[in-house]
Amino acid sequence: MSGPKDDKPGPSRRGFLAGAGGLVAGAGAMLGARGAPALAATPPGSPGVVNAEIEPFWGSHQAGIVSPQQGHTYFAAFDLVTPKREDVIALLRRWTEASARMSAGQRVQAFKQDADYADADPVEAADSAEAMGLPAARLTLTFGVGAGLFVKDGKDRYGVAARRPEALVDLPRFNGDQLADARTGGDLSVQACADDPQVAFHAVRQLARLADDAARMRWAQTGFAASAGGGETPRNLMGFRDGTNNPSIRDADAMGKIVWVGNEGPEWMRGGSYVVVRRIRIALEHWDRMKLAFQEQTVGRRKYSGAPLGKESELDPLDLDATDKDGNPVIAENAHVRLAAAASNEGAQILRRPYSYNDGVNFTAERWPPWRQGMEYDAGLLFICYQSDPRSGFIKIFEKMAKFDMMNQFATHTGGGLFACPGGVAPGEFIAQRLFLGDSNDRAGL
Amino acid sequence: MSGPKDDKPGPSRRGFLAGAGGLVAGAGAMLGARGAPALAATPPGSPGVVNAEIEPFWGSHQAGIVSPQQGHTYFAAFDLVTPKREDVIALLRRWTEASARMSAGQRVQAFKQDADYADADPVEAADSAEAMGLPAARLTLTFGVGAGLFVKDGKDRYGVAARRPEALVDLPRFNGDQLADARTGGDLSVQACADDPQVAFHAVRQLARLADDAARMRWAQTGFAASAGGGETPRNLMGFRDGTNNPSIRDADAMGKIVWVGNEGPEWMRGGSYVVVRRIRIALEHWDRMKLAFQEQTVGRRKYSGAPLGKESELDPLDLDATDKDGNPVIAENAHVRLAAAASNEGAQILRRPYSYNDGVNFTAERWPPWRQGMEYDAGLLFICYQSDPRSGFIKIFEKMAKFDMMNQFATHTGGGLFACPGGVAPGEFIAQRLFLGDSNDRAGL
Repeated sequence: MSGPKDDKPGPSRRGFLAGAGGLVAGAGAMLGARGAPALAATPPGSPGVVNAEIEPFWGSHQAGIVSPQQGHTYFAAFDLVTPKREDVIALLRRWTEASARMSAGQRVQAFKQDADYADADPVEAADSAEAMGLPAARLTLTFGVGAGLFVKDGKDRYGVAARRPEALVDLPRFNGDQLADARTGGDLSVQACADDPQVAFHAVRQLARLADDAARMRWAQTGFAASAGGGETPRNLMGFRDGTNNPSIRDADAMGKIVWVGNEGPEWMRGGSYVVVRRIRIALEHWDRMKLAFQEQTVGRRKYSGAPLGKESELDPLDLDATDKDGNPVIAENAHVRLAAAASNEGAQILRRPYSYNDGVNFTAERWPPWRQGMEYDAGLLFICYQSDPRSGFIKIFEKMAKFDMMNQFATHTGGGLFACPGGVAPGEFIAQRLFLGDSNDRAGL
Repeated sequence: MSGPKDDKPGPSRRGFLAGAGGLVAGAGAMLGARGAPALAATPPGSPGVVNAEIEPFWGSHQAGIVSPQQGHTYFAAFDLVTPKREDVIALLRRWTEASARMSAGQRVQAFKQDADYADADPVEAADSAEAMGLPAARLTLTFGVGAGLFVKDGKDRYGVAARRPEALVDLPRFNGDQLADARTGGDLSVQACADDPQVAFHAVRQLARLADDAARMRWAQTGFAASAGGGETPRNLMGFRDGTNNPSIRDADAMGKIVWVGNEGPEWMRGGSYVVVRRIRIALEHWDRMKLAFQEQTVGRRKYSGAPLGKESELDPLDLDATDKDGNPVIAENAHVRLAAAASNEGAQILRRPYSYNDGVNFTAERWPPWRQGMEYDAGLLFICYQSDPRSGFIKIFEKMAKFDMMNQFATHTGGGLFACPGGVAPGEFIAQRLFLGDSNDRAGL
């Protein structure tokens, strides 16, 4: 054996294990032959790795937006704590490299030969290893930048204040908002999605480690999606189908119109999108005590079939003008589906990518009859949506819903944020490169 | 249509949806024909339902102990708040019926025809429905009783104090314990395991609803297992394989010796087991800063291969007597595997069924240099183990580990409990029936 060979992409996590026995067996001969922790020269995650469970990292759009939704997410927001622009760029470079590797099912850093740690001066483990042996599990890592990257406490910390997009507004305070500071905002966001929760957690954990002293985690939230197979619309914890009227990720025209930033945005955001995330606690015990008919009036749909009230099947279009024999609307004026519908919002649409969350229980004392005290679920919806402009997307739709939606009796928004997700990354680039270095025409000068 | 037909087992959740269209279409003719919410006469979950993803509920042992481990758990503990023995029995009857149905992929109650809620006097939804359309996902529900069922505040509340098994001790306070009252103990326990987190959550949620005013949830904890395929030992969040030396669930002799209560226990516990659950927070950031060689000394195994120190592959037996050239033990005196090994504990063994948990992050201020402040993971291990007697199982093994295990630098036990899990349930019986009604010979008299 002639020592570490790091000039090709590292083995996949699954593939690695098969080879490990041989490396261990040969480690004795390699004592002291400590290889430099070189990184792959070929961009990891490039085409050629055949694995049905890999979502491509490189591309004109970031992965994790119109990728088929995975079963689990771990969403994390970070505060930048470095004062230096070059630290932010270095961080984004490390994150890019690591994300490409992990998306392809590889370890965050190239495998260090056993000789490394059999050496007399062992090093910190390069990767915490809990994803070793696991498949890529369709891992996607989707990055966003918050308003604080541009200006914080009145300061243009990183020289990009002039590039803040108009669409990256400060989210207004909505009626009923109970956002906790410790669960809200952040300068950078990472949405990790995978079909295995350990793969998603592992990815964020490695990125947090790579943040070193440049950024610190501000908040994080796990989520899971019901694994409804066969093309059925999954149900959220309220027991209703969630996503029936969501635009199709397979409809490129719709995605172009609803999700992707086009020429109206700054160059670095083209092919990107804006993500709004809201941690919505749902009073499930309260909801469960409601009569089925009331639940259906609240939503505007039948619970079991998913059909709009007055219709017979899930995919029947909403008829917002239908009235009953007394002249009352079949779908109530303040029903959830009416207020959310494009027709009620001058055509406004968003792409939802929602997860449920379940953070156990905590103690609640009712301040109303019958003054129950006890544990209540801290569970609900990790609402995530993408749009080309939040002013004509989430903000437009939710302003009215926050005031009138009957569902607000059961739902409380307790955290979240708005982040600008730059366009996709090509091999050799780093995430948000065009924000920092300008477009390809002036990149040479930097 | 002649109205609800509930005299056969309900359709599976998945099967139900295919039939729903017809029921909805016919609902008009059935207005007012409100069927009683009858329950299936044939025990649900009986053989005959062909679904590879169903774990049998009825049997000589409870499911969820030696069942192949599922991907997700939701573990909940309840306090009994009723003073009445008959309320407890009624609760256990409801839980039995519901558990058998849900384990078979059915709704918690028989389907109520659409006519029920189209009626002028609609009712609360019988099932919160978030598992509708999902497969059984190998759901298991495993029940236990805590010391508080027998005696609480000095009172024999339910007339079973004399039947408290000797083995159901009060767990001693172990060195380093930081058990929070709000996460510890309980009179009843439910371990829901499934390959879909929504199925596990749904099950516990229905049981909590069925508890009515007899019992209230005290604490709950989600957990997930890495989906390591191909027979590989999964890794926990410390990045090490977890379970290499676990006895095999396929070894009936070993299970008989280690897990199942035999004739030494009271009649109602025969075929049952004792579960110890501990929520173990792991300081992952701290752990990740340790050198690989130190992590391996702490555990006593190689991280990547899982081999015991000084050996070459994962399944090589531990050699606790091996010394290096200086005469020092290869596996340190306070290494985790040494202290956990049967050979160090007079042969004591337990069956571990561990999950990882990830409850996000919370703020921590270090009280030591370098006085870091910031968010730290609230993540770690939801340790669950089964044994025929906790005195010769977990307590014996952990007493020494709590004092000496090097891993204690990184792990803090923050909650949990000890519960006696009665033997399995036959159709017609309810969970823990023999505890309340005695054995079959004197059942007639009650």
